[in-house]
Amino acid sequence: MIEDKNQQRTSLENLGEFGLIEHLTKNFDIKHKSTIKSIGDDAAVLEFKTNQIVVTTDLLIENVHFDLSYVPLKHLGYKAVVVNLSDVYAMNANATQITVSIAVSNRFPLEALEDLYAGIEAAAKIYNIDVIGGDTTSSTTGLIISVTAIGAVDEKNVVLRSGAKANDLVVVTGDIGASYMGLQVLEREKEVFKVNPQNQPDLSMYSYIIERQLKPEARKDVIELLKSLDVKPTSMIDISDGLSSEIIHLCKNSDVGVELYENKIPLDPQVISTCEEFNIDSTTIALNGGEDYELLMTISQEDFPKIKGNPNLTVIGYITEKSRGMHLITRGEQAIPIIAKGWNAMKNEV
Amino acid sequence: MIEDKNQQRTSLENLGEFGLIEHLTKNFDIKHKSTIKSIGDDAAVLEFKTNQIVVTTDLLIENVHFDLSYVPLKHLGYKAVVVNLSDVYAMNANATQITVSIAVSNRFPLEALEDLYAGIEAAAKIYNIDVIGGDTTSSTTGLIISVTAIGAVDEKNVVLRSGAKANDLVVVTGDIGASYMGLQVLEREKEVFKVNPQNQPDLSMYSYIIERQLKPEARKDVIELLKSLDVKPTSMIDISDGLSSEIIHLCKNSDVGVELYENKIPLDPQVISTCEEFNIDSTTIALNGGEDYELLMTISQEDFPKIKGNPNLTVIGYITEKSRGMHLITRGEQAIPIIAKGWNAMKNEV
Repeated sequence: MIEDKNQQRTSLENLGEFGLIEHLTKNFDIKHKSTIKSIGDDAAVLEFKTNQIVVTTDLLIENVHFDLSYVPLKHLGYKAVVVNLSDVYAMNANATQITVSIAVSNRFPLEALEDLYAGIEAAAKIYNIDVIGGDTTSSTTGLIISVTAIGAVDEKNVVLRSGAKANDLVVVTGDIGASYMGLQVLEREKEVFKVNPQNQPDLSMYSYIIERQLKPEARKDVIELLKSLDVKPTSMIDISDGLSSEIIHLCKNSDVGVELYENKIPLDPQVISTCEEFNIDSTTIALNGGEDYELLMTISQEDFPKIKGNPNLTVIGYITEKSRGMHLITRGEQAIPIIAKGWNAMKNEV
Repeated sequence: MIEDKNQQRTSLENLGEFGLIEHLTKNFDIKHKSTIKSIGDDAAVLEFKTNQIVVTTDLLIENVHFDLSYVPLKHLGYKAVVVNLSDVYAMNANATQITVSIAVSNRFPLEALEDLYAGIEAAAKIYNIDVIGGDTTSSTTGLIISVTAIGAVDEKNVVLRSGAKANDLVVVTGDIGASYMGLQVLEREKEVFKVNPQNQPDLSMYSYIIERQLKPEARKDVIELLKSLDVKPTSMIDISDGLSSEIIHLCKNSDVGVELYENKIPLDPQVISTCEEFNIDSTTIALNGGEDYELLMTISQEDFPKIKGNPNLTVIGYITEKSRGMHLITRGEQAIPIIAKGWNAMKNEV
């Protein structure tokens, strides 16, 4: 729908597993000294100077996590990497290596996998990580991508979900809700396309929110920014499931309560206008939209002067004693309990 | 077919992702000091005393890698762990942690996943590894399992595929070909079952080969044995795709040739008798059967006295200069070129 470039189709069947891995990863260079041995043995060998490492993994399934009728494969490869790196940065660690496993059915030609790996390579280059291994296999149905990401961190710098204390400030990076609204636009255009395949929609007024959905970025820059500002968050999590779901994780793990202010939640103008167009409340989207891959953190009040006025960091509330519960203070100054919904739940509803 | 215990069926839909992970992993204990933070944050945190780690990953897809009509889920969980640990041991490393991601369709009740995780837990206990993370998601069709395994190793002990030298001895652990023949028996019984579901086959004469297929073990014991014998192999690989495919990997990576002796290849009597019954050549099965998860290694000739007579280790040939090529010397003393086939290729043929 968005792009159609099936000029050439080379069947995977004649390549075999070993030929395929070699072919797809032949351009991947090694950037880190910590990568001693990459693809090509029973396992990769790594060696770290820092004393701790972090490990995270995600599984992406066609028609559950992505719809190839509007997600270009190159974007998908990029996003599959980024969503994992986001978890590494949420530990305040430096992402260094990933493994990528894919299962594909025979309906994918080699050129499709080359597009997918071009996206993986682009992300590896931009985020400065090595692709050190993986598995390539056949699937009876669609495309499956499994990524495991590894990062390095000094013990004293690790930030868990469990460190928030009463009176800490709640800080969110960037703006939220855009990815979910981008998805709504893409889903609508897919329906239009079904009725009229000749239709060439003008999506320029949605460019920001569609890019947030199709090609999200992980906040590596924020980890570097915090370091340069000499701010170590007391707790941190990445926003993959929506602000409400993530703040509940932080509060439960830290055994605290929270007050968030509706009027402080950073929204892009395109989110607001698209919410109006779709007749959806933008705060609901910000709370439950998900897939923003921004960071949600708490910082000590004494660090506030260091972040004050920084356009990447917005204070949206503060941590309370657990007994106070978890509330959103609306523009009308009402305190509404925060409930976990998450975008998966919304998907079934909307 | 082998077991049918669908007494209770709890739907996954009401549990949600977070509830499901918590429920399935609640019995998993942490055994290693290197596991600083396990399941429950954006990423796991690990800290190693040894200076290098190894990382490997595998993706298992229903109806490609396993058939639930005869593979009990508990065995499948066990095997999914073991096949990854085998790659860690093939680096001469000590397996310490795994992540496990699964995607399941709604046709699986909670009880099925509990069986799967019981197998994962059993393997984690026997092999002394920590389950430190993973992802649980829905699938539009079958069951998908992605495991990443991590091991620790001192730099001086790492064994790659690339270290074999001319005159080194080629050594294989245990016996090979059994897993593939076990699969043949199970496939045959599946066809019988389709015709007559009331049939209760007596599979006791195939017990060894069926167990090798359904519940293989990784050779952790061999890694410990080699250490106690003070033998460091010059190269090593695990046998997942068949002896011929693996020896070609070792030779290509080490830039050497090889001569293997047909009459030295260790076969279990049950493999020989079942091959006769199926009218298949047992050497063909040993060379191309796969899924044995034994180790194939090369050792320096001066280490031969240390391993001589050990029932776990069989010398099956020796490494030559590359120019000599790769050959199997048959019982009739003919030199036949070794060709990579691998069990996936066989699967399409047989």
